[in-house]
Amino acid sequence: MSWTIGEADIPALARGAAVFGTGGGGDPYIGALLATQALRKHGDVTVVTLDEVPDDALVLTVAMMGAPTVMVEKLPSLDEVVTPVHALQESLGRPVTHIACAEVGGVNSTIPIAAAAALGLPLLDADGMGRAFPELQMVLPTLYGITASPLAFSDEKGNTGVLRTVDNAWTERIARVACVEMGSSIMISGFPMSGAQAREALVAGSLRTCVAVGEGIADARDSHVDPVARAVELLSGRELFAGKVVDVERATTTGFARGTATIDGGGDDILTLLFQNEHLMAKRGDDVLVTTPDLIIVLEHDSGEPITTEGLRYGQRVRVIAAPSDERWHSAEALAMVGPEYFGYDVASHRFDGALEETR
Amino acid sequence: MSWTIGEADIPALARGAAVFGTGGGGDPYIGALLATQALRKHGDVTVVTLDEVPDDALVLTVAMMGAPTVMVEKLPSLDEVVTPVHALQESLGRPVTHIACAEVGGVNSTIPIAAAAALGLPLLDADGMGRAFPELQMVLPTLYGITASPLAFSDEKGNTGVLRTVDNAWTERIARVACVEMGSSIMISGFPMSGAQAREALVAGSLRTCVAVGEGIADARDSHVDPVARAVELLSGRELFAGKVVDVERATTTGFARGTATIDGGGDDILTLLFQNEHLMAKRGDDVLVTTPDLIIVLEHDSGEPITTEGLRYGQRVRVIAAPSDERWHSAEALAMVGPEYFGYDVASHRFDGALEETR
Repeated sequence: MSWTIGEADIPALARGAAVFGTGGGGDPYIGALLATQALRKHGDVTVVTLDEVPDDALVLTVAMMGAPTVMVEKLPSLDEVVTPVHALQESLGRPVTHIACAEVGGVNSTIPIAAAAALGLPLLDADGMGRAFPELQMVLPTLYGITASPLAFSDEKGNTGVLRTVDNAWTERIARVACVEMGSSIMISGFPMSGAQAREALVAGSLRTCVAVGEGIADARDSHVDPVARAVELLSGRELFAGKVVDVERATTTGFARGTATIDGGGDDILTLLFQNEHLMAKRGDDVLVTTPDLIIVLEHDSGEPITTEGLRYGQRVRVIAAPSDERWHSAEALAMVGPEYFGYDVASHRFDGALEETR
Repeated sequence: MSWTIGEADIPALARGAAVFGTGGGGDPYIGALLATQALRKHGDVTVVTLDEVPDDALVLTVAMMGAPTVMVEKLPSLDEVVTPVHALQESLGRPVTHIACAEVGGVNSTIPIAAAAALGLPLLDADGMGRAFPELQMVLPTLYGITASPLAFSDEKGNTGVLRTVDNAWTERIARVACVEMGSSIMISGFPMSGAQAREALVAGSLRTCVAVGEGIADARDSHVDPVARAVELLSGRELFAGKVVDVERATTTGFARGTATIDGGGDDILTLLFQNEHLMAKRGDDVLVTTPDLIIVLEHDSGEPITTEGLRYGQRVRVIAAPSDERWHSAEALAMVGPEYFGYDVASHRFDGALEETR
């Protein structure tokens, strides 16, 4: 059943999306500002569930591509958000009917709301991952043979481009070098798909789930209940670790924010998080606890507010939770695309499961 | 008056274009193979002079972009040559009527012949430079406010893109990083212009001049006359130096072939050539003799055959000649785009003139 996103929903949605964003996607509050501005100017956005979208709909994803460290300093104007959609629509020669999120996570769950508002189009209650990942081809639609291209990109200076590539990895490669050259942050629109394809390939109910998680954390806090425990419950996850951030190493290279964070639990108990925009691996001492594609989430110790990878600071008291990703990310084909080995870590995928409870 | 390019014209045209190419543009004989193949398959190409082109013509340039060192190993198929033209035509929404050369120089004077043959379109007897330059925006049309974009690019794998940029320097920047990512060699089509714009902005008669210079060198050789002297006469140039290549340093970086060549004239008389795809500066000892935008050309000592920068080898006996470029390259605006300082050499433009005769 369709519902409506208004200005009042944005804080909870942004908070929940930052939880699923597993550290990536940029500062959710900055992304929220843009969505709020769009909703004030253009009115509420109708959110359509996947079972309602017509088979012959033309769905496009809208996202910001680049290093979150740069994205938060280059938040686009509303004009910039819709530019790649117009460019792609013109290239396709037919009108887009629905906007979708490529991922949930900070800016990239609120940018599509701004785009839908500015374009006067409905938004799908869905996304391409059920989390965030750093590269463009890393969406479930790739596993269903849906092409990222034609994909349009644009920057704040007014440069635009439309790519048509032989596969989604090539869309990523060419768009990424263009992104870096254009200042490490661009707007993109791509993955044109029918309603029938969207129903099959996307993760259903993402936005509703983000709002529920975001509200759950705030409600728990207001009710003096542990908000981290509430998040764990809503995500069917487990708390992995609690401690103090004692070291963060980070470099913005080839358009990504890569690094490691070290969390000291006391008594030589150390958790290390390895990230590339998103948290990709959690190690306790030398033991790998969980890896991509399952979710590794850092929350502020008391408030339960999600902390992005670029928001990590020395001295923060945090709690790290793990949660299962969409089941489809665990196929061999999916792991080849988003497993730890793809990112250069010499370990097999460590899947989140109940056994983690014992490792606490 | 229009004329026709057939298979028999290609060797002379390719040789002449390699002379004007001032070392760049890739091996002219490899480019000639592609043009010959196209003319055999599709028939002769009509060449239209600038005074004949209708004001409302739609002219596009077609070229290969990349490092000549790579271009000669990745010669495109005829299908690949026409791919960016089709992509650009579709983006523009109207049919192209004429093909033009962006530059004269090896591959990029013969690729447009192949494109015109394969597309069944007339070719303009003109080009955008009257020589070759390494970057896409370095054409006279840029000085007339003609935009490089929309510009289409494609590779041999089947990836294509269409850029629309705020200026021609941005077209170069984005296309260049895409080019490097796609293997340091791509096909491009851009600079859409009307016939009236082409008449104003291009260098008239380039192809006819290339054929004349290419034939002149061969005729002199056949008549046992010095072919280098004949080339000098046809170019209104001067011979700068004669000697043996004793050192060539070269690196293919960020999509260009950069380097220096040292030529020993005997008795401590050394000429140094600095190049980035094309020869950009000639120094005798510490004295700068000529710089870009004027032409610096290396010919084989006896045969007068042009030698490209990637064809330079230790031990070659060569003669270096200089010749004037199109007068429009000497404006302050043009020198800011193609003068020696743009290329990172800390010298003012040294213009070719008669005084060079005394430096011999």
